[in-house]
Amino acid sequence: MSSKTFVSDIKENDKVESFFLVKDKSIAMAKNGKPYINLKLMDRSGEIEGRVWDNAEEIAANFDKNDIVAVKGRGALYQGKVQLSIIDVRRAPDGAASSEDFLPRSARAPEEMLSELKRLISGIKEPYLKSLMDSFMDDKQFVDLLKTAPAAKGMHHVYIGGLLEHTLSVAHLVTELSKHYSGVNIDLLLTGSILHDMGKTKELSYKAAFDYTDIGRLLGHIIIGIQMLDEKIKGIDGFPEKTALLLRHMIASHHGELEFGSPKRPKTIEALLLHHIEDMDAKINAYQAAIAKEIAEESGWTSYQKMFERFLYKGE
Amino acid sequence: MSSKTFVSDIKENDKVESFFLVKDKSIAMAKNGKPYINLKLMDRSGEIEGRVWDNAEEIAANFDKNDIVAVKGRGALYQGKVQLSIIDVRRAPDGAASSEDFLPRSARAPEEMLSELKRLISGIKEPYLKSLMDSFMDDKQFVDLLKTAPAAKGMHHVYIGGLLEHTLSVAHLVTELSKHYSGVNIDLLLTGSILHDMGKTKELSYKAAFDYTDIGRLLGHIIIGIQMLDEKIKGIDGFPEKTALLLRHMIASHHGELEFGSPKRPKTIEALLLHHIEDMDAKINAYQAAIAKEIAEESGWTSYQKMFERFLYKGE
Amino acid sequence: MSSKTFVSDIKENDKVESFFLVKDKSIAMAKNGKPYINLKLMDRSGEIEGRVWDNAEEIAANFDKNDIVAVKGRGALYQGKVQLSIIDVRRAPDGAASSEDFLPRSARAPEEMLSELKRLISGIKEPYLKSLMDSFMDDKQFVDLLKTAPAAKGMHHVYIGGLLEHTLSVAHLVTELSKHYSGVNIDLLLTGSILHDMGKTKELSYKAAFDYTDIGRLLGHIIIGIQMLDEKIKGIDGFPEKTALLLRHMIASHHGELEFGSPKRPKTIEALLLHHIEDMDAKINAYQAAIAKEIAEESGWTSYQKMFERFLYKGE
Amino acid sequence: MSSKTFVSDIKENDKVESFFLVKDKSIAMAKNGKPYINLKLMDRSGEIEGRVWDNAEEIAANFDKNDIVAVKGRGALYQGKVQLSIIDVRRAPDGAASSEDFLPRSARAPEEMLSELKRLISGIKEPYLKSLMDSFMDDKQFVDLLKTAPAAKGMHHVYIGGLLEHTLSVAHLVTELSKHYSGVNIDLLLTGSILHDMGKTKELSYKAAFDYTDIGRLLGHIIIGIQMLDEKIKGIDGFPEKTALLLRHMIASHHGELEFGSPKRPKTIEALLLHHIEDMDAKINAYQAAIAKEIAEESGWTSYQKMFERFLYKGE
Amino acid sequence: MSSKTFVSDIKENDKVESFFLVKDKSIAMAKNGKPYINLKLMDRSGEIEGRVWDNAEEIAANFDKNDIVAVKGRGALYQGKVQLSIIDVRRAPDGAASSEDFLPRSARAPEEMLSELKRLISGIKEPYLKSLMDSFMDDKQFVDLLKTAPAAKGMHHVYIGGLLEHTLSVAHLVTELSKHYSGVNIDLLLTGSILHDMGKTKELSYKAAFDYTDIGRLLGHIIIGIQMLDEKIKGIDGFPEKTALLLRHMIASHHGELEFGSPKRPKTIEALLLHHIEDMDAKINAYQAAIAKEIAEESGWTSYQKMFERFLYKGE
Amino acid sequence: MSSKTFVSDIKENDKVESFFLVKDKSIAMAKNGKPYINLKLMDRSGEIEGRVWDNAEEIAANFDKNDIVAVKGRGALYQGKVQLSIIDVRRAPDGAASSEDFLPRSARAPEEMLSELKRLISGIKEPYLKSLMDSFMDDKQFVDLLKTAPAAKGMHHVYIGGLLEHTLSVAHLVTELSKHYSGVNIDLLLTGSILHDMGKTKELSYKAAFDYTDIGRLLGHIIIGIQMLDEKIKGIDGFPEKTALLLRHMIASHHGELEFGSPKRPKTIEALLLHHIEDMDAKINAYQAAIAKEIAEESGWTSYQKMFERFLYKGE
Repeated sequence: MSSKTFVSDIKENDKVESFFLVKDKSIAMAKNGKPYINLKLMDRSGEIEGRVWDNAEEIAANFDKNDIVAVKGRGALYQGKVQLSIIDVRRAPDGAASSEDFLPRSARAPEEMLSELKRLISGIKEPYLKSLMDSFMDDKQFVDLLKTAPAAKGMHHVYIGGLLEHTLSVAHLVTELSKHYSGVNIDLLLTGSILHDMGKTKELSYKAAFDYTDIGRLLGHIIIGIQMLDEKIKGIDGFPEKTALLLRHMIASHHGELEFGSPKRPKTIEALLLHHIEDMDAKINAYQAAIAKEIAEESGWTSYQKMFERFLYKGE
Repeated sequence: MSSKTFVSDIKENDKVESFFLVKDKSIAMAKNGKPYINLKLMDRSGEIEGRVWDNAEEIAANFDKNDIVAVKGRGALYQGKVQLSIIDVRRAPDGAASSEDFLPRSARAPEEMLSELKRLISGIKEPYLKSLMDSFMDDKQFVDLLKTAPAAKGMHHVYIGGLLEHTLSVAHLVTELSKHYSGVNIDLLLTGSILHDMGKTKELSYKAAFDYTDIGRLLGHIIIGIQMLDEKIKGIDGFPEKTALLLRHMIASHHGELEFGSPKRPKTIEALLLHHIEDMDAKINAYQAAIAKEIAEESGWTSYQKMFERFLYKGE
Repeated sequence: MSSKTFVSDIKENDKVESFFLVKDKSIAMAKNGKPYINLKLMDRSGEIEGRVWDNAEEIAANFDKNDIVAVKGRGALYQGKVQLSIIDVRRAPDGAASSEDFLPRSARAPEEMLSELKRLISGIKEPYLKSLMDSFMDDKQFVDLLKTAPAAKGMHHVYIGGLLEHTLSVAHLVTELSKHYSGVNIDLLLTGSILHDMGKTKELSYKAAFDYTDIGRLLGHIIIGIQMLDEKIKGIDGFPEKTALLLRHMIASHHGELEFGSPKRPKTIEALLLHHIEDMDAKINAYQAAIAKEIAEESGWTSYQKMFERFLYKGE
Repeated sequence: MSSKTFVSDIKENDKVESFFLVKDKSIAMAKNGKPYINLKLMDRSGEIEGRVWDNAEEIAANFDKNDIVAVKGRGALYQGKVQLSIIDVRRAPDGAASSEDFLPRSARAPEEMLSELKRLISGIKEPYLKSLMDSFMDDKQFVDLLKTAPAAKGMHHVYIGGLLEHTLSVAHLVTELSKHYSGVNIDLLLTGSILHDMGKTKELSYKAAFDYTDIGRLLGHIIIGIQMLDEKIKGIDGFPEKTALLLRHMIASHHGELEFGSPKRPKTIEALLLHHIEDMDAKINAYQAAIAKEIAEESGWTSYQKMFERFLYKGE
Repeated sequence: MSSKTFVSDIKENDKVESFFLVKDKSIAMAKNGKPYINLKLMDRSGEIEGRVWDNAEEIAANFDKNDIVAVKGRGALYQGKVQLSIIDVRRAPDGAASSEDFLPRSARAPEEMLSELKRLISGIKEPYLKSLMDSFMDDKQFVDLLKTAPAAKGMHHVYIGGLLEHTLSVAHLVTELSKHYSGVNIDLLLTGSILHDMGKTKELSYKAAFDYTDIGRLLGHIIIGIQMLDEKIKGIDGFPEKTALLLRHMIASHHGELEFGSPKRPKTIEALLLHHIEDMDAKINAYQAAIAKEIAEESGWTSYQKMFERFLYKGE
Repeated sequence: MSSKTFVSDIKENDKVESFFLVKDKSIAMAKNGKPYINLKLMDRSGEIEGRVWDNAEEIAANFDKNDIVAVKGRGALYQGKVQLSIIDVRRAPDGAASSEDFLPRSARAPEEMLSELKRLISGIKEPYLKSLMDSFMDDKQFVDLLKTAPAAKGMHHVYIGGLLEHTLSVAHLVTELSKHYSGVNIDLLLTGSILHDMGKTKELSYKAAFDYTDIGRLLGHIIIGIQMLDEKIKGIDGFPEKTALLLRHMIASHHGELEFGSPKRPKTIEALLLHHIEDMDAKINAYQAAIAKEIAEESGWTSYQKMFERFLYKGE
């Protein structure tokens, strides 16, 4: 199975042999009394319906919902939409498919975002904070996770690279804001802002779908992030304890309120600014995603948005 | 009573003849069995204790708490602090004292802030929004109020000129931020941001102390602001109804949630940005004011801040 | 298509040619392998299932869910219920069907309710309030809307004429109550009560289904109602500003609490009475509607009522 | 100590020998170095300051705060207000003073209110409900409590006779309203309305001040009321169980929401009406009391009302 | 229909003639165009799908959802699962089936639990409390209900015998704990703990499914329980009023907070302990039930648990 | 200043030379016109009023509120209470006074409680958990803090040794409970229970009064406790990562709900049990402390308890 055929490229009568993620799977009874399989297949370009008309029961035993599967079939038109008429489906061998093909990803290239982030880091003047950020950036394993992790399972920046995109956006915003208000420790604010969500590299799993890890559900990214910070700080001789405390406070308090999962609320100007900016960035990203998803619909309003608990205005 | 003597300038033995605002007034019994008057006098530079030892009952009949009064006395040292030993106090004739002497005011000159705001307005390209903002800026009565009004009675920017300072700060911030996100109508965002709190020019009274007006308590600055906007729009031929609606929505929703007094929550990207930015600006101003007020205290923490429902960290 | 055939009148074998509203539309596969259309059709008398067995795909292209359509078919019995076996469905030409046929409407005739309301208005003694109400009643466009608008999209009085019914009920109740308590300005209370929900004439759309308008979602009936009031007041020379303020306050505060969308809470006895009475009237109407809808069911309890967050007792 | 001298009648130089309730008591140091007693004395007509200049320590030992005391003294003017210059104070013998002299009481005569209530009861047609109400009215001990109990410790109708006044007001209101809505069992509604707060006769104590009883704090008037109802019902042969259940439900649910102390929320039309009407009556009474208390003050607004969590508008 | 065949025992080709509870019933169209009935049948051992292929319309008229029915059919394999191929279904004659066969029941034998409870009761030393508990245990009708009632409709101990199991568990726990803290009236605590949920014997119905009774929905088990207690106390000469009050308070307050349906919150150490212990016991039982239900699933986490508003960790 | 004279031992005319903590300090004007100092002095046995009549201004300059001071004076009777007539007060030299004299402490000896805790620890069978607890118990610096730290600043166990007392109580309770429920990992539950509040050794300061440390306010005892755990675990080769995760989860979730400061809610049976038990232990301790504090008062009720938001019943 050489190269990936993306859902958005499949047309009527195209022969398709490619990997897809099984989002839904059910068995129904066809007109001729035989069982058939109804599938919803997806990759990062979108979703497509599929039907397996023959040997449904045997084939159905070969894979489950949420598997990445190898599919053989052909594009067919039904009620004006292309779907897949499928001959065979089976679980893909481990590692055969590239997970990046199945999950949506950031519109921006990770390397480009990473360079931008490093440029911002290079502007940090306080030597210990500079060392701290360098030790994160020199940690290849960490950087690999940072380039791929989403920023959430279902609220905002829910795509591969979303964590880096959100981090970079917040870093840019606080850099601008730190000039606007007096009394702000710019280097501290920037460092805390870049670190605030780092625990998400371990909180979320995103092999085939976005979900939480065990540690994500049992501890959450705030505690994980502080643990990651503590580990790096231990490697830096003489890192000032007070600076460490203020950074930990920024991570601990960035959700702003206890009921949103922060065990402490912001009590320094840097923690306050971080909370407001990162909350705004999350909300604006979620707004833009909601609008983008329904941009083709005729209505001036989106469907009901659970995260916002309201309908959003798209305009005409 | 020629020129104002400010509380912060009074030293022991200084002869004082000036206007002050009476913040507290009570009658006590002196050591010799005679009643005397305890006063707390203030002007915008600070507060001072005062005592009237002779003719207390007659003199007490001449003024009330919250009056601006003409005071004759002399600086005296008591327990290491300067207070006023007073011979006479009486209500100041209407208009004799300048109200600006008694209330704290913005550190920035109103004319300078106004120029800055006008510069931002001059950058608006959409002609109807430009006309709208010009019609506000050409309304001398409105501009006079804008230059003096506080932004609140007790939360943030509680000083003469505070409304203008908050408005200008938000206007700067949205101007910078509007470049950061795609899909933002910059002119609409800037106009709505400048207008969002305009109702406060009528919601608050600040002759001698900061308080609410009747209309402030019965309607509030959101409804007042929409009424003010509607009046200006009526004077502009062909003002697009849709633009008017989006501006009204920004004013109506800028508190973000129903329980904070907004009858509608933000449903456009401009209303969302305005809400987040103006909320952050209010909170940062309140943080800075809390820190400034207790900067001389030894503790690394402020006293309990009711608005934040927490102690704030001042650092060492 | 001469006259309307109502759903509640259709019997087995009746030939039907009439307009209906499409509440649901889906395509399924029939026993013979051919697609067919499943429809849920409605008018104000009730709902009926319909099936299009032939030419399903072509016919399905002629209309959408929520359209008013012209239907040709015949009554058929299926599992003991009458449904429609349909030959043709197509979108009705604009204006061909009367929207009043499709939405439920008040049990009371609008003209009768209007007369009753006018009788109450005629009892207002304060001349400015009398003029104000007259100017509303003389506004034909307004009165037309008042006679048809529902009082809500889904809480209470959800039917054509519901706004007028609710308004009249509240007006009657406050008239009685104003004698019960001392210190009530009867004319003010009555006027404010009649005006409190007037913004709903523009907040809600009810062509084919009950929904919100753009201005309804972006501003809401409280702000709209104050704008409508302001416009009428401008036409009355010398209308006392204080009376205007108290009326605006009644509209602004009638939901009682900020979290229910009132930007201010009631602070006068008239505003308090209005809030309590109109809340009670809405709740009682919703209770009666919930009971009426399930009166035929055997159980002594209604199904779960989302608005009340409870089951309601019907009794035996 | 023959007859009561009321606070509101004391003038300068009047010789006073009467009972008062001690609301506050403190010892201070007089100008001549001797201790003296500061008192706040009250009866149902108001409050007055008192001073005991001689033998303060001995006299102070004779009574405590909250005692009813026999006072000998003389009216004296101090800072324009009459106070009492006192020679002797001592605890009043049990029963010597009439508790009715010390607590505020309803403006209406209890007997008159009782007659009115009985008139309403006489209109009940359902024989079991009639018997039930008669058995309450024939219970002399109950009726004595009903004539004196307040309706609350600190929210509304906080005065002797307040419970009867509130009960009567609610009974009148439901009688009028029951004609307004269809489907209401008028006799059930009236009976439940009269009974809803009966538990307060045992929940509150009001010998010298309004407070809760032990059973009031441990069970509350809702459970007490149901127990009282159950006892009366047991005395009526054949009282229908279903009617009993619906009455209990009205008592149990009349606070409307769990968080206000109702273990169940209203689920019948009678329980809903009772809740709305009795809540309104409590709020309007509280509004009127707040206004009345500060009617003499110049401001157009009351002081902050904790129960309403707002300032109330008195008007000019 | 001699003995019960349990769902969990049915295998392919088994001939089945037994009673089942109908949990779901719908009519669909079979491959040959004929209607057939889809059933979900259950008894206390589990659920099974069933199909009636012939005479579907006639047979469907013989029973409804929630009925206990007599079923004739045969086990058949479909997609690897056993279902029932059914020839006849009809409503079971009243009393023909034993309700205990259809609802899940406690893993512990009721008689055994009852003995254990009686043993705990026998340890009560205070004679009035002992008499009280004896009078409950001597009430055969009550004990029969106690042995069968569930502890809730859907939160915890949702099975026949669940109330007794919960009561016994709480009784054991308070017995152990009462030694841990000083100042606890052990007999009072134990008695109140056994009585706290007794109202549930009348609040819940569990003939064929767990549901609320009318009195359960209109009054709830707290008020019912106090009524039951009052009745028993009346039969005991000289029962101390104060002890009765403290027991009633324990029942009234055991939910801990008003919003959970307690009209009073715990104010004695016995009421506090009872609240904490019985809440913990309910939560732990619910946790164990959630884990047990999904123990066979592969995931380390349960599905989303509405009662807990979270996923629970099962471990590996 | 040899040995401590405790407040509770001072009698009239006793000569006193001892250290006290200054709880309040103010300057007033004496009868002769001279300023004097009013003091409230305290040690762990209680509080006493003090007066400095001579050289008040000089002496006042020698110390501040919250200082531990050396006091010279004599017991004097005033209004039936002993107070101190003071000749000299000055700040105590650092280390001169023993802080244990000034703060209330647990009724139980720390060494005894520690032994008991160690005995429980010795019962742990799982070797890694045993090693972990041993490494805590072998850390002398930690154990010293554990023996003195309070469990809170103002809710429960607010006394020296309170943390150890609470920890031991919870450890006993979970040991008993772990036998009551199936499926509980006893060693894990006991270990997590002992560790749950360990962060409080660094969260609270208690030199002269109970307060928070900087790290206490910025991070809180949950995050601190996890850091302390992580440090100990690093010292134990091969400590299972899963066990570490479950322990961290117990610490993180022990407050039960996000709004109480837990960033995650309990999701394992051990975390659930810990939360319920430690919450109960805190509440019961607070109840007992409230009762003990007012045991001498006549009333059957405590004063209003802010933590419980209610009055508590003391009984007769």
